[in-house]
Amino acid sequence: MEIKIVTSNNHKYDEIKRILEQFDIKSVWIKYNPMEIQSEYIHEVVIYKAIDALTMIQPPFLVEDSALFIHSLGGFPGPYSSYIYNKIGNKGILKLLENTVNREAEFLCVIACCIQKNIIKIFSGKVRGFISHSEKGEFGFGFDPIFIPEGYQKTLAEMPIEKKNEVSHRGKAVKKLIKYLVSMESFNKDSYTFIKE
Amino acid sequence: MEIKIVTSNNHKYDEIKRILEQFDIKSVWIKYNPMEIQSEYIHEVVIYKAIDALTMIQPPFLVEDSALFIHSLGGFPGPYSSYIYNKIGNKGILKLLENTVNREAEFLCVIACCIQKNIIKIFSGKVRGFISHSEKGEFGFGFDPIFIPEGYQKTLAEMPIEKKNEVSHRGKAVKKLIKYLVSMESFNKDSYTFIKE
Repeated sequence: MEIKIVTSNNHKYDEIKRILEQFDIKSVWIKYNPMEIQSEYIHEVVIYKAIDALTMIQPPFLVEDSALFIHSLGGFPGPYSSYIYNKIGNKGILKLLENTVNREAEFLCVIACCIQKNIIKIFSGKVRGFISHSEKGEFGFGFDPIFIPEGYQKTLAEMPIEKKNEVSHRGKAVKKLIKYLVSMESFNKDSYTFIKE
Repeated sequence: MEIKIVTSNNHKYDEIKRILEQFDIKSVWIKYNPMEIQSEYIHEVVIYKAIDALTMIQPPFLVEDSALFIHSLGGFPGPYSSYIYNKIGNKGILKLLENTVNREAEFLCVIACCIQKNIIKIFSGKVRGFISHSEKGEFGFGFDPIFIPEGYQKTLAEMPIEKKNEVSHRGKAVKKLIKYLVSMESFNKDSYTFIKE
């Protein structure tokens, strides 16, 4: 059996698939974007995405949502990160932060995993960091070229996918999901089958 | 009978109520914000809002959604106008448009009116204009202080509510709704009762 990764974003699929592979969990890409609600709470957005996906897709599957929160902009771009990235891009963010000393920001990723029709589990990962003064790097996508994780000198877009997965919000959330999937082994034979089959 | 105006925004309620009053249509404010989906299409957002409101509120009622689309920013802030206004405000928009010659923009308002449980009618109004170089005016709300309607020298926030209603996207949409409500008279006695009672 495989876990379906439900996303319209091939970068997200790639990143999640790579980590699952390290733990021998197979995955398949369902290129579909479930309906999203407007909410400042990514957790809420993701739960509704999972419920919407359940009307179309057989579990087990996962949906995810990620957001960049810039402290000096009150959390902007937040839950509409993808839309705002498409409209004003990294250049727009850098313009809004011109002459701004406080460049603290954080990336949040929330994953909802539907194990069965009536079991939705939520996992989140966060990475703190800073908005750079210019775009750097060719890897990744979205705001990666302007986000420097705390403790690093490079943007996420300067890190190859394996390195980004070690550091990133998405990497952390996926690892929590994997920990849960693996822990199911000790409770439930069926779950074992589900993970390893 | 009265039409319920379902919105969490008192400014919107005030504007809509004033126009309805001119046509002897009574209204009552239901201070509630129905669930909104993420979509670039305001019409779609509004239809879902109406469907969500129908689970809580007895028709007849109306819900609305409005958005500012700035041409040189690819339509930003668009469907997330309210969120983006709360985060970066008019100052953020002016910063994004620094050194930008093309300041064309438009405001769109879409109203969904639930006449009965199975009748949802949609009305929209649009006003073209320009983003000013600074904030002006004390009336209105949101992006009004930076939006100058085509053919005018003043921002929407420099116009008292009656004047704004003559010009604005919301005013136009409400007048289309009223035209529909009034036209129902000729077809249906019950509708007549509904409008005039």
